[in-house]
Amino acid sequence: MFSEEALRDLLEKIAQGRISPEEALKRLRDLPYESLGFARIDHHRELRKGFPEVIYGEGKEADQIVVIAKKVISRRMPLLITRVNEEKAQTILSELPHLRYHRLAQVLSYGTRDPNKGQIAIVSAGTADIPVAEEARVCAQAMGNRTTCHYDVGVAGIHRLLGELPTISQARVVIVVAGMEGALASVVAGLVKAPVIAVPTSVGYGASFGGLAALLTMLNCCAPGVAVVNIDNGFGAACIASLINQA
Amino acid sequence: MFSEEALRDLLEKIAQGRISPEEALKRLRDLPYESLGFARIDHHRELRKGFPEVIYGEGKEADQIVVIAKKVISRRMPLLITRVNEEKAQTILSELPHLRYHRLAQVLSYGTRDPNKGQIAIVSAGTADIPVAEEARVCAQAMGNRTTCHYDVGVAGIHRLLGELPTISQARVVIVVAGMEGALASVVAGLVKAPVIAVPTSVGYGASFGGLAALLTMLNCCAPGVAVVNIDNGFGAACIASLINQA
Amino acid sequence: MFSEEALRDLLEKIAQGRISPEEALKRLRDLPYESLGFARIDHHRELRKGFPEVIYGEGKEADQIVVIAKKVISRRMPLLITRVNEEKAQTILSELPHLRYHRLAQVLSYGTRDPNKGQIAIVSAGTADIPVAEEARVCAQAMGNRTTCHYDVGVAGIHRLLGELPTISQARVVIVVAGMEGALASVVAGLVKAPVIAVPTSVGYGASFGGLAALLTMLNCCAPGVAVVNIDNGFGAACIASLINQA
Amino acid sequence: MFSEEALRDLLEKIAQGRISPEEALKRLRDLPYESLGFARIDHHRELRKGFPEVIYGEGKEADQIVVIAKKVISRRMPLLITRVNEEKAQTILSELPHLRYHRLAQVLSYGTRDPNKGQIAIVSAGTADIPVAEEARVCAQAMGNRTTCHYDVGVAGIHRLLGELPTISQARVVIVVAGMEGALASVVAGLVKAPVIAVPTSVGYGASFGGLAALLTMLNCCAPGVAVVNIDNGFGAACIASLINQA
Amino acid sequence: MFSEEALRDLLEKIAQGRISPEEALKRLRDLPYESLGFARIDHHRELRKGFPEVIYGEGKEADQIVVIAKKVISRRMPLLITRVNEEKAQTILSELPHLRYHRLAQVLSYGTRDPNKGQIAIVSAGTADIPVAEEARVCAQAMGNRTTCHYDVGVAGIHRLLGELPTISQARVVIVVAGMEGALASVVAGLVKAPVIAVPTSVGYGASFGGLAALLTMLNCCAPGVAVVNIDNGFGAACIASLINQA
Amino acid sequence: MFSEEALRDLLEKIAQGRISPEEALKRLRDLPYESLGFARIDHHRELRKGFPEVIYGEGKEADQIVVIAKKVISRRMPLLITRVNEEKAQTILSELPHLRYHRLAQVLSYGTRDPNKGQIAIVSAGTADIPVAEEARVCAQAMGNRTTCHYDVGVAGIHRLLGELPTISQARVVIVVAGMEGALASVVAGLVKAPVIAVPTSVGYGASFGGLAALLTMLNCCAPGVAVVNIDNGFGAACIASLINQA
Amino acid sequence: MFSEEALRDLLEKIAQGRISPEEALKRLRDLPYESLGFARIDHHRELRKGFPEVIYGEGKEADQIVVIAKKVISRRMPLLITRVNEEKAQTILSELPHLRYHRLAQVLSYGTRDPNKGQIAIVSAGTADIPVAEEARVCAQAMGNRTTCHYDVGVAGIHRLLGELPTISQARVVIVVAGMEGALASVVAGLVKAPVIAVPTSVGYGASFGGLAALLTMLNCCAPGVAVVNIDNGFGAACIASLINQA
Amino acid sequence: MFSEEALRDLLEKIAQGRISPEEALKRLRDLPYESLGFARIDHHRELRKGFPEVIYGEGKEADQIVVIAKKVISRRMPLLITRVNEEKAQTILSELPHLRYHRLAQVLSYGTRDPNKGQIAIVSAGTADIPVAEEARVCAQAMGNRTTCHYDVGVAGIHRLLGELPTISQARVVIVVAGMEGALASVVAGLVKAPVIAVPTSVGYGASFGGLAALLTMLNCCAPGVAVVNIDNGFGAACIASLINQA
Repeated sequence: MFSEEALRDLLEKIAQGRISPEEALKRLRDLPYESLGFARIDHHRELRKGFPEVIYGEGKEADQIVVIAKKVISRRMPLLITRVNEEKAQTILSELPHLRYHRLAQVLSYGTRDPNKGQIAIVSAGTADIPVAEEARVCAQAMGNRTTCHYDVGVAGIHRLLGELPTISQARVVIVVAGMEGALASVVAGLVKAPVIAVPTSVGYGASFGGLAALLTMLNCCAPGVAVVNIDNGFGAACIASLINQA
Repeated sequence: MFSEEALRDLLEKIAQGRISPEEALKRLRDLPYESLGFARIDHHRELRKGFPEVIYGEGKEADQIVVIAKKVISRRMPLLITRVNEEKAQTILSELPHLRYHRLAQVLSYGTRDPNKGQIAIVSAGTADIPVAEEARVCAQAMGNRTTCHYDVGVAGIHRLLGELPTISQARVVIVVAGMEGALASVVAGLVKAPVIAVPTSVGYGASFGGLAALLTMLNCCAPGVAVVNIDNGFGAACIASLINQA
Repeated sequence: MFSEEALRDLLEKIAQGRISPEEALKRLRDLPYESLGFARIDHHRELRKGFPEVIYGEGKEADQIVVIAKKVISRRMPLLITRVNEEKAQTILSELPHLRYHRLAQVLSYGTRDPNKGQIAIVSAGTADIPVAEEARVCAQAMGNRTTCHYDVGVAGIHRLLGELPTISQARVVIVVAGMEGALASVVAGLVKAPVIAVPTSVGYGASFGGLAALLTMLNCCAPGVAVVNIDNGFGAACIASLINQA
Repeated sequence: MFSEEALRDLLEKIAQGRISPEEALKRLRDLPYESLGFARIDHHRELRKGFPEVIYGEGKEADQIVVIAKKVISRRMPLLITRVNEEKAQTILSELPHLRYHRLAQVLSYGTRDPNKGQIAIVSAGTADIPVAEEARVCAQAMGNRTTCHYDVGVAGIHRLLGELPTISQARVVIVVAGMEGALASVVAGLVKAPVIAVPTSVGYGASFGGLAALLTMLNCCAPGVAVVNIDNGFGAACIASLINQA
Repeated sequence: MFSEEALRDLLEKIAQGRISPEEALKRLRDLPYESLGFARIDHHRELRKGFPEVIYGEGKEADQIVVIAKKVISRRMPLLITRVNEEKAQTILSELPHLRYHRLAQVLSYGTRDPNKGQIAIVSAGTADIPVAEEARVCAQAMGNRTTCHYDVGVAGIHRLLGELPTISQARVVIVVAGMEGALASVVAGLVKAPVIAVPTSVGYGASFGGLAALLTMLNCCAPGVAVVNIDNGFGAACIASLINQA
Repeated sequence: MFSEEALRDLLEKIAQGRISPEEALKRLRDLPYESLGFARIDHHRELRKGFPEVIYGEGKEADQIVVIAKKVISRRMPLLITRVNEEKAQTILSELPHLRYHRLAQVLSYGTRDPNKGQIAIVSAGTADIPVAEEARVCAQAMGNRTTCHYDVGVAGIHRLLGELPTISQARVVIVVAGMEGALASVVAGLVKAPVIAVPTSVGYGASFGGLAALLTMLNCCAPGVAVVNIDNGFGAACIASLINQA
Repeated sequence: MFSEEALRDLLEKIAQGRISPEEALKRLRDLPYESLGFARIDHHRELRKGFPEVIYGEGKEADQIVVIAKKVISRRMPLLITRVNEEKAQTILSELPHLRYHRLAQVLSYGTRDPNKGQIAIVSAGTADIPVAEEARVCAQAMGNRTTCHYDVGVAGIHRLLGELPTISQARVVIVVAGMEGALASVVAGLVKAPVIAVPTSVGYGASFGGLAALLTMLNCCAPGVAVVNIDNGFGAACIASLINQA
Repeated sequence: MFSEEALRDLLEKIAQGRISPEEALKRLRDLPYESLGFARIDHHRELRKGFPEVIYGEGKEADQIVVIAKKVISRRMPLLITRVNEEKAQTILSELPHLRYHRLAQVLSYGTRDPNKGQIAIVSAGTADIPVAEEARVCAQAMGNRTTCHYDVGVAGIHRLLGELPTISQARVVIVVAGMEGALASVVAGLVKAPVIAVPTSVGYGASFGGLAALLTMLNCCAPGVAVVNIDNGFGAACIASLINQA
């Protein structure tokens, strides 16, 4: 709505008398989203960012999610529902059996976009980081990206990572998922040319402080070409990786 | 050195008896960098990441910098020296007059790569954030990117940002530089399609805690398509933005 | 008791021999509250601040709450009980059926003051912030304020907020409730004239650190006219907003 | 610019053919601020919030400030320049002798608005908190408010505060400025009816952590009717207090 | 064992040939405590500090506690067991019916010392702080102190505190227990002459950060004569208050 | 003023018509302190707490201190001025030559009270902690206490502490001053019977975080009978130790 | 794989035509670990570090652990599975009855290496620290070390520690396990000659902040010869202690 | 003094009447250190830990250092003075010309012990980390260890590290010195067999928070065999490395 073209078009229509100021004002206010009382669906984002509609499932009840999901599906738009545990997912699936549940990733998906030419490599440090890595993978695929996965290749045994390098090097973007000390992002960024999106995870104990240690490590990465998203935010990593891959 | 092709090539040369194992081992160890005793120049990075050689100037003395810089220039490679205050810059320039000093950005540069087709928009919230934004701009240009600058467009007067949107929207990547509450990254990411690299700055007082407030804001950004680099790290933002723009 | 008028009045009564010093001392000590052993009800606050009596329900058992509530109601004073979950509320309602339970807000109320002329706008960023927003709304209404609600208008899709601006602009005070990065307060304060009371919420994950990120964002807000209350403190926001609205 | 009335007016002018869409777009983008390259003056804020134009002096050089100040003064608008130390102030005054320097407050002012009917009480805990309290006072007066000052009345000798209560109680808003443990805000809010804006200061040592202790104290204040601004932010307190006083 | 007298006595016995060096060494090592394998009871502390033996109940299983408690009781020493929830207490009482359980304080006690002449006042801010205050009271009494209790007298309604002052002023030590903003310690210390031991509690929400806010408030207390113990540490406050009272 | 006796006396005088209510109110407000505009001297504290008047010198200018000091001295009250560096001290001494400057402690003193019977032992861990220990010693002596000093007896060589134990054991209160890991308080409290006031210092580097490490150590002390004051707060330790010694 | 010898050997085999480059590349990539899809077993670490294979049990399901464990056992390698609660252990033991479960340590072990000549002393402060101490003991023994245990010898009663000193002094490495204030490491390091590995535990409450207090204490230890591992990381302490003992 | 042998010997002398109890007590107290009033030299530590006497130079004045140093040298003991800047060093050298100043390490040394058979490798990540690495090297050599240095081999160009591996692998202990993200410790520990002592440095900016990021990284290191010392504590790393090397 706020791109110059759209605004110019709206203003011109008014100037030509094709719509009234009242109508223009109404469009400006009402069009871009749909209010459900407790939520406002941003149908415009699909156009603006090229993403499916996304529902953040945590803290929403199953029936709230079903109401929003039906609205989205009725417009034939692809849909992602993140942070849905298995019990809640079963309740939703009983109403919306066409959704697909990805258990490790805790994501429900509906529809996907055709895969883009480029490819996103998803690299994770330990077995315990896999759920976050899978959230990234499922979301990236739903946004129309091809992905390759390289799990359990942490820096404590660096030969495991080197064995995966040939494939990782072919990606246009690399997502690195790591908890504990989070050093994997630095090492990967030192070895590949592609931009690296680093995802700290809350995996660890003691002085990992819920992912803070890995977060600080990644922010202080001395290898160039790394940027960081929030702790455990596989979805966020997929978003920016997808924008980069499809730029 | 660690790309599969390079390794394969080296191994084949050995297999064909064209170089001895001793020689191979030596190459593997010695080639990619040049030791100056107190520093090891990573000549290989230029090839690996497509960046100029970069010297982090803070904490290094002027004569140390001159020694490293001469080595790099003698190989006709482009060069960036960051975090150089005016006094230190004058000392270096008296020895290396071909360098160019960017006072606001506190950067010395030598040579550049030809500008790439895409374009990076650099958006900053307040006047005090300009030094970090300028570090990003100078570095991005030296890495071969075209840039546009949009300074002092913070969210307290959002109409100032909207006026710049048409130009910002044409960029392939947007770098958002903001201190204090750092909310600009969220708003920009909600309005443009391109990936956003957010740079928190240490501008602010009291509970900004040296940039921590802006950093947390940007990491928790609820608009999709944002990743974050370290506080005041304009150079780091330029690196990943350049990789994205040239991908 | 400590307003100059009250003290002067008490002292004059003593000087005129109308009450004895012993009695005066007793009044000074005993009058303004009523001791229940485990709690002292501050009946005087109703007069002093213009609020209903408020019981903070968290950590109190249902029967403790019932004892205090009966004392208050017996004096025909309005009453608010905050942070009461549904199970505890049912126990209390079985004893005090005249109370009204607001499930989303987790508040029990009894009686209200007549609505004041001015109006408080309550704006929240996401669906998950609604419980805190509702606590603010219910409390503000019980204190005699008219309210309007504008939920799920976060900055990631700023057009949703702009559509609500005409109504929000008519309020004498605006309460902004936001978790995650909490940027909404800055944007609202940049667009409206009324004072903004910002409520950070603990909604978010990872580096939101239980609401710390939103709190810091709001404290560092560069738009003028914003002050902040504690994380998730919808009640506290209602208090100060009510005082402002009724000033 | 974003009030509904203004937008409606603009749209109607277009609909009536009184201005062209091109012109409308230009106005929307260009009118509300004036670009000086390194800064964009938000002339519209004066109208929008009822404040003078404000320049945050810290980190800006004297000549930058002079350029911006001249622009503002040429439009006959009142002006505040905050965080200006004595040396920088002298440089500016040599160019702009009509400005007035408030040494304790570190503020330069030009012009004021006529005093409003209500009154703001500024209460501070210790002698060392006076500079922040003075910043609040000078700014509040420049915004057209009457003020009363009550300094060095911290809770360690509560009788000092009680002596000031009669005057404090007459204010429509109270600003409480306190460092160290910051308990003064709680005590004042328990005694007066008006809303309290609390300003933590960085005064203290050891575990005051630059004002963090006072900030947390004030955020956790159990007396109703308190909201908090950033550490040492006397200006911010004046802004919201002024909006409340003039609502 | 390490008082000079005891050491001198041991050394003299050796010098006089009344015990052998082997025996002396053994006494030095073995006497002062009794090893149960998983715990070493410090029987000597009763003599050294004048306290009953204390078992910290949290994290210990009921049967471990019973084993230790029987050892202590068999020597006819008084005993305190802290942090024992009701379920665990019932299990222990079924084995040791002579113990007495204080439910609010979560303490089991056995035996007490005769009350000392002085008196400890225990003052708490809110109803939710009572469990910590009760832990202090029960422990102080078991250590042979008389106590007076003054609960729910927080600073938000300071007249409640003033009513209790006459009694509080007669104590030789005052223990102040407060969560949220913890300002009560400052106010009490400003009004009484006795030393104040401040106990921050974890009562509060949001930016109280589990008692950190109250802890910092108390450490930064500007009223003289206050020292602080750990968050929720009613037992620790009783220990030092008892030493002061009995000094 | 707020002791029951004083209030009762005042009220009786009014009841007997010996002073008018107007006068009573005036006394209640005006008597207990003396206003200098920028400071209010609390003459009443001397009576209330038994301390000399204390001026916190940090952040006050020499001439401000001289004005306050003259007022205090003119009433023949003892005086302490803390945190005064050598240069500022010389300026003050040139006006007030009767003051005495304690260089290590950074304290100016005037007059003392006669020494009390009990004795305070001041124990410090390292040479660098001595300034804080000296601030405690000078202040404690000015408050009328005898002191013994035991410096550089940190736990890394515990035999140094044991050698001092006989003297330390004779004190009625022990002040332990320690930076770095602050473990000395735990060890001392395990060996002596007297209450221990622990003062963390900012001595240390790296993860001592300006005294935070020592502060946390002391708060978590598992030996009973320890309470803590603010980092580097030798004066605060002297205050509470003096109250304990003189109780 | 990356020791110089191994690489040289591989390269020589290629030079001699004994293996092809393709084969060499394959070996380099595939040999050192075994991929199970969700985990990559690093068989090479046994050789590289002299440790058994270790599975971190937390967050892995029992059947995942069984799959990995069977692979390891089939190669007749010793195995440690850490952080296994009793319920999960029973499930695993029903499939792999040859494993041995250490309940206090929460460790499953299979096979051990013959004990080395040196000896590791494990010293813990309180009863609640025993689980971490036991994790260290079980792991150290499985790695082929003799151990002695000295539990509940915290600094609050330092004579308990002195009684154990003769045995502790004979160790080649000392592991000190302590929560709360963690002062034990400083005291032990001041008394013994061997290097001390300090393990902070999360035992404590309030301002222990989950082990942070003990961690900072140990990092700031002023006694020489101490290094620290992560909070509660008994396994990590055993690893480095074993490497030291067997060096 | 506290080794069992020494204590037994002392006790036996008393039992045999060869020294009196008075004398024994005196020895126990007085022998092990020498008091200079402001410092107590622990001559016994040399014997106990095998270290030279060490003076921590920061915060001590040059003449204080000279006094202590002369005492130590007069006993012909080796000596280390750490954290001495160049100016202070020159003052000390003018009095004690036999000392040797190591400028990069900021250390003064006198005498050394003969080199031990084993070898310590010191590995540092960046040029800016060299001062800390040099402090470790100089101290380790003074304690009688051979050292090898491997500087500027950070993980951003991992081939630089691999080239140094053959030499590093021959060490009995490896000290890894790294700031910024501190990932080097993890990578080195994954490649070598020796125990790794990790030293985080305060090198970095923004979210490195003075070395906190590197510290947390190293504590959370997932490669086994790493323990950590305080930020910038090269001396501390040398101490424990020396004890390990000489065990």
